[in-house]
Amino acid sequence: MSKHVYKGFEPKWYKEEYPKNSYRAVFRWGDPHFHKYIKESLYEIIKDSFKMTDEDFKQYTSNLGIDEIKLKKPCKLDKKHLEFFKKIVGKDFVRTDDYSRASVAYGKTMYDILRMRKKILDNVPDAVIYPSEKEQIQAIVEYCNKNKIPLYVYGGGSSVTRGVEPVKGGISLDMRLRYNKVISFNEIDQTITVQTGMSGPDLEKHLNNAVTEFNAKRAYTCGHFPQSFEFSSVGGWVVTRGAGQNSTYYGKIEDIVLSQEYATPKGVVKTTKYIREATGPSLDQIMMGSEGTFGVLTEVTLRVFRFMPKNRKRYCYMFKNWETAMEATREMMQCECGYSSVFRLSDQHETKFMMRLYGISDTVFEKALAIAGYKIGEAALFLGFSEGEKGFAKNVRKKIGRIARKYKGFPLGGWVCKSWEKGRFNDPYLRDSLQDFGILTDTIECTVNWSNMEAVHQSVRKVCVAYKDAICITHLSHAYPQGANLYFIFFCKMSDPEEFRKYHASILDAIQKSGASMSHHHGIGKMFGPWLEGYVGKNEYEIYKVLKKHFDPNNVMNPGGTLGLDLDEKDKRKLK
Amino acid sequence: MSKHVYKGFEPKWYKEEYPKNSYRAVFRWGDPHFHKYIKESLYEIIKDSFKMTDEDFKQYTSNLGIDEIKLKKPCKLDKKHLEFFKKIVGKDFVRTDDYSRASVAYGKTMYDILRMRKKILDNVPDAVIYPSEKEQIQAIVEYCNKNKIPLYVYGGGSSVTRGVEPVKGGISLDMRLRYNKVISFNEIDQTITVQTGMSGPDLEKHLNNAVTEFNAKRAYTCGHFPQSFEFSSVGGWVVTRGAGQNSTYYGKIEDIVLSQEYATPKGVVKTTKYIREATGPSLDQIMMGSEGTFGVLTEVTLRVFRFMPKNRKRYCYMFKNWETAMEATREMMQCECGYSSVFRLSDQHETKFMMRLYGISDTVFEKALAIAGYKIGEAALFLGFSEGEKGFAKNVRKKIGRIARKYKGFPLGGWVCKSWEKGRFNDPYLRDSLQDFGILTDTIECTVNWSNMEAVHQSVRKVCVAYKDAICITHLSHAYPQGANLYFIFFCKMSDPEEFRKYHASILDAIQKSGASMSHHHGIGKMFGPWLEGYVGKNEYEIYKVLKKHFDPNNVMNPGGTLGLDLDEKDKRKLK
Repeated sequence: MSKHVYKGFEPKWYKEEYPKNSYRAVFRWGDPHFHKYIKESLYEIIKDSFKMTDEDFKQYTSNLGIDEIKLKKPCKLDKKHLEFFKKIVGKDFVRTDDYSRASVAYGKTMYDILRMRKKILDNVPDAVIYPSEKEQIQAIVEYCNKNKIPLYVYGGGSSVTRGVEPVKGGISLDMRLRYNKVISFNEIDQTITVQTGMSGPDLEKHLNNAVTEFNAKRAYTCGHFPQSFEFSSVGGWVVTRGAGQNSTYYGKIEDIVLSQEYATPKGVVKTTKYIREATGPSLDQIMMGSEGTFGVLTEVTLRVFRFMPKNRKRYCYMFKNWETAMEATREMMQCECGYSSVFRLSDQHETKFMMRLYGISDTVFEKALAIAGYKIGEAALFLGFSEGEKGFAKNVRKKIGRIARKYKGFPLGGWVCKSWEKGRFNDPYLRDSLQDFGILTDTIECTVNWSNMEAVHQSVRKVCVAYKDAICITHLSHAYPQGANLYFIFFCKMSDPEEFRKYHASILDAIQKSGASMSHHHGIGKMFGPWLEGYVGKNEYEIYKVLKKHFDPNNVMNPGGTLGLDLDEKDKRKLK
Repeated sequence: MSKHVYKGFEPKWYKEEYPKNSYRAVFRWGDPHFHKYIKESLYEIIKDSFKMTDEDFKQYTSNLGIDEIKLKKPCKLDKKHLEFFKKIVGKDFVRTDDYSRASVAYGKTMYDILRMRKKILDNVPDAVIYPSEKEQIQAIVEYCNKNKIPLYVYGGGSSVTRGVEPVKGGISLDMRLRYNKVISFNEIDQTITVQTGMSGPDLEKHLNNAVTEFNAKRAYTCGHFPQSFEFSSVGGWVVTRGAGQNSTYYGKIEDIVLSQEYATPKGVVKTTKYIREATGPSLDQIMMGSEGTFGVLTEVTLRVFRFMPKNRKRYCYMFKNWETAMEATREMMQCECGYSSVFRLSDQHETKFMMRLYGISDTVFEKALAIAGYKIGEAALFLGFSEGEKGFAKNVRKKIGRIARKYKGFPLGGWVCKSWEKGRFNDPYLRDSLQDFGILTDTIECTVNWSNMEAVHQSVRKVCVAYKDAICITHLSHAYPQGANLYFIFFCKMSDPEEFRKYHASILDAIQKSGASMSHHHGIGKMFGPWLEGYVGKNEYEIYKVLKKHFDPNNVMNPGGTLGLDLDEKDKRKLK
């Protein structure tokens, strides 16, 4: 729980535990006992930006969603199908009650949340199934294919692309309840094989406890910590090509995956267990990114890393401006000193925000920066961690420091990193507390090269702030010698889902026009689907369609727009 | 040229420049002015092993192949087709003479060389075309598809898998002559885009000279140095998923490629320019490994690296035995201190050989090793380089040294590495000088995990040495935290191509049975094709077939067994 003390007026933050079976129980981020709201200094910015007063924060303007969920959509699945599924997974693990169905209807884009608040449940599955073994999933996939029943998968539910939404009804496999076991651990090869419903914290706990749990010589880490870490699943990471906040060192999930097994309508597809080979196209890389449209990912073998938190080095520098900071960070990524794990650069707008969020504003550093000529509104904040073996982490830190000094970076303490660390997984809670007062915040991200980074930054930002009073802050948080991602966070006064959808679409349009990649790690889902062919090209997109037709000729796997695969031009226009 | 001085009898090494237009001009490795033969100490081993005497080295027992090539196969292509091709590339660049056709018939496996020595030209193209622009290639691919003319590509010609062999006749694009230009260089993003017929040394030269050639701030390197470096092409590296000897640091070619463009029967396919994204399956990884069966790779954008040879550190250790050495090298790869670039561990058999090849036998080290209890025949030699930024290279070297000491590695000088460096690209010349006396040497390699490395090593080696008097030496030369490759080099007395094919097949069978990957970086071509489905699995192999059918419905792209795609079960049995 946030413990910010307000000196002046404090908004009426909703700190209740939400009622069971309510809309809020579904749309709200994460842990029911945890609430997070903004600091007073940020509250002041918000009020200023949106021309609001304390009055506006005395009552909720958005529906809190505390009523019990009532669906007006009965389960349409034939009884014989339900009987079949019950035979496969056990009768307690096929559910058709309103709450179970609603709870797997949406992911976590604000489009989902705003609809939920308005009790709009556009799409729910007819039944939710809770498998525990891969053979059950194989049987279910086979059956759904034969009987043309749409099949969706709900891993952690943190999709921001409508990836899990059961647009065509049918069934949804909720993997959280029972499909989350370790299958094997191999210390010689440093790998772990798990069922795909395993959550991030569960995986990390198993690995951290390897000595007692697996009789290992040492503790390990998964190296993959997306912001959604606590409420995302291993399977979701893989099928969407996710990235953790430490990916600059550990790699994106596609670099961490060693092997996968899928249940597809064409049968089981299992990739080989070798990290590199020259045996035709990469089957791993064909299956990753398919987002449930080819089959259900049932097992994953991940590479694991030694858990050495003692070696972690933290560093933070303020650069005079964004241009200099981009130069400096590019040099850090190209100098071959080893990569930082967290590697995060805020633009001038985000820096202003972060000064408050990370608590720099409350320290002597703010004054020192001002004296040294670093202007808030121009300056750009960089923070990083290095990890790995002690000498490696030290060398990265040393060299980064040297480059920062060369580019006149003002050293701030490692405590800024620690402050960032505290919030790294729980910032999404802010979305709920702000929306209670009609303020919306969400994110869109893309990949750029160093050479088009500023052009993309400017052109996409322009569209983000074109909406009345909207605030846009940007950072890069996953870097490579050849480029990085750009992460746009926007705040605006908005509560209407359709208005949000259009705003969101205008930003995707801007990304497409800018030439950036449509996604670095959020995936495509159904929300970005209409833009995918335009991005990869016609002949190239045809390859996805050919693969889809092969694996899923009856279009039962995550149908209804995922990757845009079953959309015609008219559909696409409607969704854009 | 080798300059080994023999104290005793010296074999009658063939040191002539081969006659122009001869078979030898085609099958012989590389530079016509360079010859390489073995040292006297190795000559003694060879004689002992094969129960030969000096008498056997006074005359050649294998055909030298110095006659002029005469094909008894006239060009069967319709004149109108030749006219079309001439219109596209110019009349001088469509050739049907015997030498031009023979020169692109084979790659460089001993199966090719033995056939060539016996004047067996199983397959030649009807015509050879020398394109200079990608638009020409696009037009040729379109035309061949329409007219069902088989199309092959000859990049550098160093394939050891019959990858380039025009089994169905038709045309072969010889990329060496004119398709080798730099298209663009981008220093901001550290990338270069080239035509795919560019050779390794040409690419490296452009990058080393970036300051003068591209007005760059510094010099760069491609980081990719396969043993075939001097006579291989960028395109060949990419379509086969090759690896350079420094890949443990720089990555395999699939890690270095940023973007590709192909001319396929379905039109141009161009991948995106971003290193990581979450926009569906990876198109780069679908196209890489297709080995010419989907289309012709026309352009590649590669990541480039800073050229910092001054920072290179070299190290070499002798371990008491192979088991300890595997433990030590695994620790080196898993400790997260950064990766070595060259990382090479010889088994006990290769170590014995290398003691002589690298000149350790001639030094005080041999005696010191003996005194310290390191037995030749048991001990295992490790050598490595580290590169990158100075502090990085130093840290890797330091940590590797520490691990080596922990595992009782006996430090040998960096000069062993330098000795290895001298031979790193020209060992293939030995194959020709030995075969003149009926001795064959060739290699097969595969990927393993650390946990099955020794089982694979033993079972494959057993089959290699099962042939009468055969010698087998093994090393790992590309390492990962999860495993490495194993590289089997075998020597035997053999000159018959069919006998070689069967021997080679018995080794592939052994690899398949051992569970190792069929290839780490040589690719599959036509020679390994019959084993591919058995390796990846039926449902998995079906994916390759679906892609093939999509891109090349008329089967004109590298047809006749590449990746096994157009083989039926009967064909496969015949080739196994």
